Amino acid sequence: MLLEHIHDPKDLKSLSVAQLEQLAAEIRAFLIEKLSETGGHLAPNLGVVELTLALHYLFDSPKDKFLFDVGHQSYVHKILTGRMDQFDTLRKYKGLCGFVKRSESPHDVWEAGHSSTSLSAAMGMALARDLKGEKNKVVAIIGDGALTGGMALEALNHIGHEKKNLMVILNDNEMSIAPNVGALHHYLGKIRTDRHYQKAKEELNQLLNKIPAIGGKLAKTAERLKDSVKYLLMSGILFEQFGFTYFGPVDGHDLEQLTELLEQASHVPGPVLVHVITTKGKGYSPAEADSHKWHGITPYKIESGQVLKAVGPPMYTEVFSDALMDLADEDNRIVAVTPAMPGGSGLIKFAAKYPNRMIDVGIAEQHAATMCAAMALEGLKPVYAVYSTFLQRAYDQVVHDICRQNTNVVFAIDRAGFVGPDGETHQGVYDIPFLRHIPNMVLMMPKDENELRRMMKTAIDYNEGPIAIRYPRINGLGVQIEKEMKPIPFGTWETVREGDSAVIAAIGPMLQVAEEAAELLKREGLNVRVVNARFIKPMDEAMLLQIAKEGLNMLVLEEGSVQGGLGSAVLEFYSLHNEHNISVRIMGVPDVFVEHGTIKEQRQEVGLTAEHVAVELKTLLPRLRKQRVTGQV
Amino acid sequence: MLLEHIHDPKDLKSLSVAQLEQLAAEIRAFLIEKLSETGGHLAPNLGVVELTLALHYLFDSPKDKFLFDVGHQSYVHKILTGRMDQFDTLRKYKGLCGFVKRSESPHDVWEAGHSSTSLSAAMGMALARDLKGEKNKVVAIIGDGALTGGMALEALNHIGHEKKNLMVILNDNEMSIAPNVGALHHYLGKIRTDRHYQKAKEELNQLLNKIPAIGGKLAKTAERLKDSVKYLLMSGILFEQFGFTYFGPVDGHDLEQLTELLEQASHVPGPVLVHVITTKGKGYSPAEADSHKWHGITPYKIESGQVLKAVGPPMYTEVFSDALMDLADEDNRIVAVTPAMPGGSGLIKFAAKYPNRMIDVGIAEQHAATMCAAMALEGLKPVYAVYSTFLQRAYDQVVHDICRQNTNVVFAIDRAGFVGPDGETHQGVYDIPFLRHIPNMVLMMPKDENELRRMMKTAIDYNEGPIAIRYPRINGLGVQIEKEMKPIPFGTWETVREGDSAVIAAIGPMLQVAEEAAELLKREGLNVRVVNARFIKPMDEAMLLQIAKEGLNMLVLEEGSVQGGLGSAVLEFYSLHNEHNISVRIMGVPDVFVEHGTIKEQRQEVGLTAEHVAVELKTLLPRLRKQRVTGQV
Repeated sequence: MLLEHIHDPKDLKSLSVAQLEQLAAEIRAFLIEKLSETGGHLAPNLGVVELTLALHYLFDSPKDKFLFDVGHQSYVHKILTGRMDQFDTLRKYKGLCGFVKRSESPHDVWEAGHSSTSLSAAMGMALARDLKGEKNKVVAIIGDGALTGGMALEALNHIGHEKKNLMVILNDNEMSIAPNVGALHHYLGKIRTDRHYQKAKEELNQLLNKIPAIGGKLAKTAERLKDSVKYLLMSGILFEQFGFTYFGPVDGHDLEQLTELLEQASHVPGPVLVHVITTKGKGYSPAEADSHKWHGITPYKIESGQVLKAVGPPMYTEVFSDALMDLADEDNRIVAVTPAMPGGSGLIKFAAKYPNRMIDVGIAEQHAATMCAAMALEGLKPVYAVYSTFLQRAYDQVVHDICRQNTNVVFAIDRAGFVGPDGETHQGVYDIPFLRHIPNMVLMMPKDENELRRMMKTAIDYNEGPIAIRYPRINGLGVQIEKEMKPIPFGTWETVREGDSAVIAAIGPMLQVAEEAAELLKREGLNVRVVNARFIKPMDEAMLLQIAKEGLNMLVLEEGSVQGGLGSAVLEFYSLHNEHNISVRIMGVPDVFVEHGTIKEQRQEVGLTAEHVAVELKTLLPRLRKQRVTGQV
Repeated sequence: MLLEHIHDPKDLKSLSVAQLEQLAAEIRAFLIEKLSETGGHLAPNLGVVELTLALHYLFDSPKDKFLFDVGHQSYVHKILTGRMDQFDTLRKYKGLCGFVKRSESPHDVWEAGHSSTSLSAAMGMALARDLKGEKNKVVAIIGDGALTGGMALEALNHIGHEKKNLMVILNDNEMSIAPNVGALHHYLGKIRTDRHYQKAKEELNQLLNKIPAIGGKLAKTAERLKDSVKYLLMSGILFEQFGFTYFGPVDGHDLEQLTELLEQASHVPGPVLVHVITTKGKGYSPAEADSHKWHGITPYKIESGQVLKAVGPPMYTEVFSDALMDLADEDNRIVAVTPAMPGGSGLIKFAAKYPNRMIDVGIAEQHAATMCAAMALEGLKPVYAVYSTFLQRAYDQVVHDICRQNTNVVFAIDRAGFVGPDGETHQGVYDIPFLRHIPNMVLMMPKDENELRRMMKTAIDYNEGPIAIRYPRINGLGVQIEKEMKPIPFGTWETVREGDSAVIAAIGPMLQVAEEAAELLKREGLNVRVVNARFIKPMDEAMLLQIAKEGLNMLVLEEGSVQGGLGSAVLEFYSLHNEHNISVRIMGVPDVFVEHGTIKEQRQEVGLTAEHVAVELKTLLPRLRKQRVTGQV
């Protein structure tokens, strides 16, 4: 096996193209085997085996900088830079990260988990290089899907302007996670599919040579014509318009052609774009056949391609999806909007039933948000289905367009809370802090499947402005689904367990942790009240005042940032109402980025367990508080 | 005067082009006169007089929807829709808004203050129209500068894909607020300046007619050639690539040509782009000569063009600018980055001295942020100068790229707090809530000019991660500038007035309000301590604990959102440290959008005055608190 002898990119330099091809096959076999046990982003990585090999073969990492957009297609890069023996720990707690990770290797120079950042980063690195008077290559590898993200287009525009030496590799697999959307996609398709371009180029040159005799007024015109023809023939005219020199398209699995074109492009000054056509899942037929399904995959059986899935109650995503279908049947104002996540957001079924009422805008979270605001102003009921972490991209649009104009946009915020193996770039722990300070916003989180359905109904019925429901990336509790969706009384909390020692106010999956903690304390003779704080904004003010009146202290429990979260809102409320005698403690995610692992491990890391909650609660018992107060007065 | 008879767009319909021209002249005279007293966005509005007339003349507002990008060029639209007699109150408290405002008129269908939203909004309105089976035109009017914003490009891509009937008017004045940046700008320049295009079109058609005899293999090629020529000739090839039908360029001050082209374009199905060339400040020579200066202007003398400026200490923007120059002289890692605001951010002088170290990326807040992260990783010290309200656009990049990778990016956040006449779209009251929950972020606000300089030094010396300084859109206090910049001890607050009755912790301009309030209470024999809470994150924990130990209560005073702000951070701190016996009150901006007016009026509206602070403080005196506590125990 060649692969065993590759511990550093330097080990590639002396290999022949035939040996690189052998290596590619070995890497594929390695990935297919390892990921069958750990799961991970199989299809994207199978697609870039040759491309990654070619880059490390031709260029000199880490002096030359490789920036992988999104970063989940960096497995081959990790294998070639000495991390092959860590793949058993891939995406596991304290194990190999599923994305580029600077702390893992000097070859990892740019981290990402969100899309479309690599061009801006490449520009920053090229500017820094030139200011420092250094010489190195900067190479961004970006998918065709990521290229539609606004910030990638901003970067294209700026790069074309500044003319720095910089290489963009467009890894064109005709889809990112979902089929691509947009004019740019059609444009790339035109380049890809028109096999006659190359031929036409030759023919047109002949044609032009046949009309050299035109003189006078037409001479200049003929020259223009040549320019025009050049444009046509370059295929990458759009990129040329943006100031790039365009190369391609080239077969991204043909190492000979690929290395030749990359080599050639690397000598051209200024920004160059190399258009590489790859196949997601290349070399593993189940993944080639359904690259959506195999984009990010759980463990599977290699031979059959059978995916091993844990059985359990439906995910909240699916509950949302079903509820939306039920509601859309009754209310034709409802339109679903997704930024390139129809699968992840559970909208495939919806799109099949209501093709005109499901709008996939591509990777364009900002555009999606503002478009929703306008649709709402025109009387529709847009439901913006988006992951908590990706909604961060549309923060300004939520403030300026949706909330400031007080539009009836419904947010279905999936993957709120810890997300497990995707880790720190994907944690949904900031949406409460970045949404709750925006005027007009309403924010809810359900305790179970039926409450999610009821919240959906509540949101659709609400016509006073924006309203958001956040739900976690986990299975529901398995409760019996009630077909009828009764709206939830606006702004109310719910006592789910009686008690008079202290109160836990918890949201979403933290309610179960709260109840377990209450059980633990019951053994010690303490009766802790547990409240479902389902309305994060506005909160249940009557209940909050009542609790203060009863003289009970409160522990707020949330799987989200403590800074600016629900607990913070409770503190603000009591401060505003001069209720200075109730003690409030907050348990949530502290002021650090929490890395990959299982959701359970992530909760343990930050202390969001029943045992910890029980310990914290004891510090809040009225008896103790009163002693302390009395001691000071 | 014709203008007196125009109360509604309907009144235009029967006019001749000559009469429209007269009207244009009258509108210009009106704007030049009115704005000489109120100030406002003069140059942008003088540039769109004919364009706005043509739109209202041809189309049928409010049935047809006009969406003005940014919205500050809507004055002519306001005049034509019955709001002429309100111009004395322009941008004044409770007066006419300087932007599009739905509550003012049914003709105002889309509000904005931030750039690049109009295309997404137009797409939303076109989708809604088609789903509802209605017939109306949707027209977005967007400047060439705003077109480089990522979300506008996301929208272009989506619009080109969906093929809805929709008109985009590219109001091309070769600059937005500052000269434009980017490949797109060069591209537009090429179209604008090449006067031979129209001629070449005719000539080429002749040429093509002369080569019809080529047969066989070359016939197909010749056809391609025609396509190619069509591309060249259409000029708007980039927009055509995006799926638009392109019209123009047309002189935006020639009503005859303009109405003809718009009329023609309005009958073409699918998305059309009409490229209109306008001159900012058209018809008023001082504004034409320096349209940057006259973009947004204070009152002026009409004849001389002399701008009436209040004398006073330097604005904080200028203090920042000078400090940055001083620091850059000593530290060549420093690079300034601005998203199209070199003037507003005070970087003109810096750019003149260090042209290679000042990077204007155009309207591209996201790209700027991520580029800064990459530059910092490569050892530079990027200073991202940006308005608080526009930094909202880069929230995800601040989280995901800058803070998560813990990069040494310095944020110079201008216009933090109330901004006065620009009003609710521009208030800088959310940056504390949207920044302080991000791990690794450091956040400061200075009390005066010297402290801003010292904070700049602190930020440049800090190499542990991102650090931000926020400062207001006002004049400094007029303190003597100390040339030497001594860093501020990290994470410390400063007691600026001694006292033992209670504590006010205030930031920035609120410190003066706090001191005034303390003076008021001194008359009643109360000694209030005033603390400069200059480090918003991390706070001065030792001082906070000391205050609790002393048994003093605290009022937190901030010109920013109460929800998730500094006060909220103080509450969280005391909760975390089990200091449940100190009472904390917060005074800041409540949970509403605060509209235009003077900063003083905006403060009064939300109660941020010395008188109010004095009243609130009394509720926090220890005597009162103790009584209450004792009563309950």
